[in-house]
Amino acid sequence: MTNPAPMVQLLLTGDELMSGDTVDSNSALIARELAVLGLVPARRITLGDDPQALRTEIQDLCTRGDVLLINGGLGPTIDDLTAEVLAQVAEVPLAEHPEALEHLDAWCERRGLALNDANRKQALLPEGCEILPNPVGSAVGFCLTVSDCLVLCTPGVPGELRAMLNPIKERLQERFGIRVQRHVLRLQTFGVGESTAQQLVLDDKSDWPSEVALSFRAGAPQLEIKLTVDVEAHLPLRHQCRQRLETLFGDHIVGEGDRKLAAAVIDLARDQGKTITTAESCTGGLIAQMLTQIPGSSDVFPGGIVSYANEVKASLLSVSDTTLTEHGAVSEATVREMVQGALKATGADLGVAVSGVAGPGGGSADKPVGTVWLAWGDSDTVETVCLHWPLERVLFQTMVAAAGLDVLRRRLLGIPEQSFYLRQRRIS
Amino acid sequence: MTNPAPMVQLLLTGDELMSGDTVDSNSALIARELAVLGLVPARRITLGDDPQALRTEIQDLCTRGDVLLINGGLGPTIDDLTAEVLAQVAEVPLAEHPEALEHLDAWCERRGLALNDANRKQALLPEGCEILPNPVGSAVGFCLTVSDCLVLCTPGVPGELRAMLNPIKERLQERFGIRVQRHVLRLQTFGVGESTAQQLVLDDKSDWPSEVALSFRAGAPQLEIKLTVDVEAHLPLRHQCRQRLETLFGDHIVGEGDRKLAAAVIDLARDQGKTITTAESCTGGLIAQMLTQIPGSSDVFPGGIVSYANEVKASLLSVSDTTLTEHGAVSEATVREMVQGALKATGADLGVAVSGVAGPGGGSADKPVGTVWLAWGDSDTVETVCLHWPLERVLFQTMVAAAGLDVLRRRLLGIPEQSFYLRQRRIS
Repeated sequence: MTNPAPMVQLLLTGDELMSGDTVDSNSALIARELAVLGLVPARRITLGDDPQALRTEIQDLCTRGDVLLINGGLGPTIDDLTAEVLAQVAEVPLAEHPEALEHLDAWCERRGLALNDANRKQALLPEGCEILPNPVGSAVGFCLTVSDCLVLCTPGVPGELRAMLNPIKERLQERFGIRVQRHVLRLQTFGVGESTAQQLVLDDKSDWPSEVALSFRAGAPQLEIKLTVDVEAHLPLRHQCRQRLETLFGDHIVGEGDRKLAAAVIDLARDQGKTITTAESCTGGLIAQMLTQIPGSSDVFPGGIVSYANEVKASLLSVSDTTLTEHGAVSEATVREMVQGALKATGADLGVAVSGVAGPGGGSADKPVGTVWLAWGDSDTVETVCLHWPLERVLFQTMVAAAGLDVLRRRLLGIPEQSFYLRQRRIS
Repeated sequence: MTNPAPMVQLLLTGDELMSGDTVDSNSALIARELAVLGLVPARRITLGDDPQALRTEIQDLCTRGDVLLINGGLGPTIDDLTAEVLAQVAEVPLAEHPEALEHLDAWCERRGLALNDANRKQALLPEGCEILPNPVGSAVGFCLTVSDCLVLCTPGVPGELRAMLNPIKERLQERFGIRVQRHVLRLQTFGVGESTAQQLVLDDKSDWPSEVALSFRAGAPQLEIKLTVDVEAHLPLRHQCRQRLETLFGDHIVGEGDRKLAAAVIDLARDQGKTITTAESCTGGLIAQMLTQIPGSSDVFPGGIVSYANEVKASLLSVSDTTLTEHGAVSEATVREMVQGALKATGADLGVAVSGVAGPGGGSADKPVGTVWLAWGDSDTVETVCLHWPLERVLFQTMVAAAGLDVLRRRLLGIPEQSFYLRQRRIS
């Protein structure tokens, strides 16, 4: 049997967090680590370095929850207030902690520095607290109990915080008898927007098991679907839900975890002993860049061409002047010749070409901003499609590049290219 | 005379923020924009998608402050709860807002989609609220007053939030009679690390005027330096500080505001009537992609080549087999021939070539991971350098691509290429 999960809250402190000069990535780090124990922080407060506000807030937080994790304010400077404020809230004096002083001594010695007053201040901690060792930096973490709430104080430097999270998790497991291990499955999809995805699942969700939490995270270009269960016994239920999602989303599922389209394409090509090339106009090198971000991409990607100007489409990809004159750069005939030209120039087995109007300028009544032709295939068969994605320039480039990778993925998988986005965005 | 500044609080909502799946960058964006009005949020709360917790928190927030900016929860999905909860707190019904419905209709029509139930839900807003137009996405923002607190609801998608912040600032100025205009000057630099930059300024800061706040924000690849004064009367002082920074940082300053290296290169080339090309190995298309992200890049960028494999370096860039065999792909001789090959293939006036070991694999004792050769120039003069940047793969690609743009910028400006990073990272 398991105790009820403790109510966990986070308090982040620092003027730099309030001014917007620093983006808080520590909260996400803490949350991901706590998730392993099935703990999700219920509430997170962020405050500047104001002792009065900190005192009031900490008092309130300690009466509301079982665990308060404070991050920041442990440094040597005068705006590092955590120990002082916490001593006030706990109604204990500040006292030089022998273990903390020892740590600071050793830390200074390793650096050949003398212990100065600023460092020595870091050993002044609320009387009766326990130390959370910091193997990385000078600031020692500490914890104490205030109004039945376990208060854990951690440094704001991400590397120092990270090094402290394992002992903190152990302490929480012990204190609250936590045996839960949350099981998270993330699926990466492409080609289904968040609202369409939600609608798909809603239409089918009447008997969705309450044990399996479902959530979506819309990124550009991929949409992540997350299935979470709290206990191992529910893994079979999660598996059923996964199968339902696989039926609903089919070949729009790119893979598990952090799987990216480019990695899927590279692995498929490698497995099939095929190489891939790119001929890019409006995406300007982004497809190539997405591929080459993946370690090992050199196995399957000999290279590609960014043919922004018509002259380069002609010189490097052998697109004929007639085609460019009669059909224009954004046309089926042009992308067909681009992909064939790239295959010839690089000797690759499979290629993708894109040419479109990324905007904000350059659109016409005939080919408005957001129009893009894609062609993909090998020296025998080239398929084409024209899509309309009237998005802001960089987002357009991102979505089109991803579509370019997706049609390659579909081609390598031998599945029909009739995906949602091809059906919805196709304009001819 | 000016009214006292309103007390501003932020509420961020979303399970993905609590679970650690998403790092919250919106708070920093909001804070930086509010800073222009001299406003610093006093308190920030982050909560998951729990209607009961949201209701309690919003009630409390509305009684504590003058302004509550809520971010997130406006999407089409069932866990988007902001409108519903806010209606409960304000004790008004939800009603289909005609202006919101019109926006959603138009949004769907532009995409050739039918308005579905999930989208339609986004028009259900607290009765009596005013719309905050969203020029980018489907979710409309809205605002209403609860317990004398102005509540502003904004979407969680960063691009949509950003597009809404100017109207929000205007509304705050009007409502609270804010005439303060904090004057922020941001300078973009490349090639100086944050700690070096700080040291540079510290060494020179003894008589720095206290009226001019100085801060740094390290991004990859650029470092931003921010100078802020609170009143117009201090602009001359800020100007003096800017001149001091210009002396200290010299040609490492890329420009003002959001100025990117790629935009600087494009404008310089356009002004000089020159065209630019790229021959990329380890950056895999990223330099081309950085250039083509900038609207109007087609004026100066005819195209480039991603030559990942030696065969493509030979076939498309005419790098000789002898060079590749004798010196290897990561060598001065290869990048020299790459840049010359790209100039010939595209007819561009100026080019840059890179070839290096991005890792994690592929390093050797001779050329460890992080080694990269750059070459840049025209058909007459090509300069080269070998750098060592032992960074994680994607960060390495980012920094090297930026260095490729920076040497072009320096060449176009006619300044010597002896920048910090060339001096510090040069290995031969």
